[in-house]
Amino acid sequence: MLYLIGLGLSYSSDITVRGLEIVKKCSRVYLEHYTSILMAASQTELEEFYGKKIVMADREMVETGLQEILRDSDKEDVAFLVVGDPFGATTHTDLVLRARQQKIDVEIVHNASVMNAVGSCGLQLYNFGQTVSMVFFTDNWRPDSWYDKIWENRKIGLHTLVLLDIKVKEQSIENMARGRLIYEPPRYMSIAQCCEQLLEIEEGRQSSAYTPETPAVAISRLGAPTQTFKSGTIEELADYDSGEPLHSLVILGRQCHELELEYLLQFATDPQNFKLKVAKDQEYFKPEPWRPPTQDN
Amino acid sequence: MLYLIGLGLSYSSDITVRGLEIVKKCSRVYLEHYTSILMAASQTELEEFYGKKIVMADREMVETGLQEILRDSDKEDVAFLVVGDPFGATTHTDLVLRARQQKIDVEIVHNASVMNAVGSCGLQLYNFGQTVSMVFFTDNWRPDSWYDKIWENRKIGLHTLVLLDIKVKEQSIENMARGRLIYEPPRYMSIAQCCEQLLEIEEGRQSSAYTPETPAVAISRLGAPTQTFKSGTIEELADYDSGEPLHSLVILGRQCHELELEYLLQFATDPQNFKLKVAKDQEYFKPEPWRPPTQDN
Repeated sequence: MLYLIGLGLSYSSDITVRGLEIVKKCSRVYLEHYTSILMAASQTELEEFYGKKIVMADREMVETGLQEILRDSDKEDVAFLVVGDPFGATTHTDLVLRARQQKIDVEIVHNASVMNAVGSCGLQLYNFGQTVSMVFFTDNWRPDSWYDKIWENRKIGLHTLVLLDIKVKEQSIENMARGRLIYEPPRYMSIAQCCEQLLEIEEGRQSSAYTPETPAVAISRLGAPTQTFKSGTIEELADYDSGEPLHSLVILGRQCHELELEYLLQFATDPQNFKLKVAKDQEYFKPEPWRPPTQDN
Repeated sequence: MLYLIGLGLSYSSDITVRGLEIVKKCSRVYLEHYTSILMAASQTELEEFYGKKIVMADREMVETGLQEILRDSDKEDVAFLVVGDPFGATTHTDLVLRARQQKIDVEIVHNASVMNAVGSCGLQLYNFGQTVSMVFFTDNWRPDSWYDKIWENRKIGLHTLVLLDIKVKEQSIENMARGRLIYEPPRYMSIAQCCEQLLEIEEGRQSSAYTPETPAVAISRLGAPTQTFKSGTIEELADYDSGEPLHSLVILGRQCHELELEYLLQFATDPQNFKLKVAKDQEYFKPEPWRPPTQDN
């Protein structure tokens, strides 16, 4: 049996009781290690907690070494651990499909991921639109397909969860070209950098999908003991020191109810000002007044 | 300290290791008991698993009896258990705000909820729009505000998660009027009933936010040992016997990629036909061709 087991967000003990029981009986244990990191536990701590050796599975292994992960899992129990939920921000449907093609049984053990735990900022999960990813801009690669998605969400009043890029075990272009297996230190995008990139693209496009004054919530180290939230405008958050990773950002939509706003105000440096900015944004994005249909319709 | 602890979806052992450690040390334990149910565990099983008595908290208790839940939680540890995640489909922000006003510390233990575990149907969570709730229609109450939300999602290509109504500890109108504390047996909406209600409203509106042929995925007993998925059109699913609760439905959006579709085909009775219906729906909802801006813009 192949088990895909979510580890949750932060602590080694964020694994479920059922997940832990399964890990303990597996003959091989892999940890997916390139789309996210467990914040409050190291590999060694996890190995002690499970009483098992863990094989760290990087992107290469998961994308090209699937056969090794699946080896003998029709006869033995193999665990593939994923930070968050196995079908969270990154889905592992490919692994499941491949296993099923080889008649290997698959069981999923779910857990919290940023996609649902983001609700702890106080905004209703009901009112989130599509999620976007913000990647590190480089000198000649500044992808902005997320811009239209934020706009689509905001046109219908929805919040947008922005997932911030992380780079684990990446090679520099030079090292890659020379075939040297030297990896850059891991990098995690900060809230400030994300907001700067947001502002840069809006400045170029001038379409007002959002403005420097649009309200947002910075979420840092979600689920970890040092978790923090900060409510502010995108412009304010471009100057915010968000500390250690991981971070995500929520850009507010018009559908922000009284109780949600009250919750967000706890995290604002200047609650009155934040309230004002939310009201202004809601006014700008409010639906057009209803008009009776004309003959043409 | 007040702890809000997610129980996950089904098994008593779906609680996290950290969650279980906390429950064991709490002096009072409440279980929120009106927005969802834990599928594979009864109250007695939970009490045995925790080694603790559990107080079942119904809507009345949570909405008007908050003070009793919060009592002494500045000095003692109190656990408030929620099926899924504490900030899942129903948020408990009100409870957190009230506690903070009374200077009671609050800690959240996250877990999986339908809002992220729905990814196990194979559709990317990225591409979901706003979530809607389908309530039981009565003779004179057939609310359909969800219709426009589905339409908004589908216009921009997004999937819609439809949460199906559950009625736990509800009084009949007659018993309520007479002040008799007699409760109806619990009711859980089936996939078939949900699809019938969808079709009824579309038939009335004729706006084609979706049609009888729109592809969808029925998700039953998500996370439970008897979990099932069924891909089909809304019309087909209106005849589907989905078995025991709980159920949810996903109405597909245009953004359904090859790998997602491959995954959904596993759950279709007639995969070729389902593929055809998806292609037809994508064609209908495809974006208009790009036109160069005119002088006016």
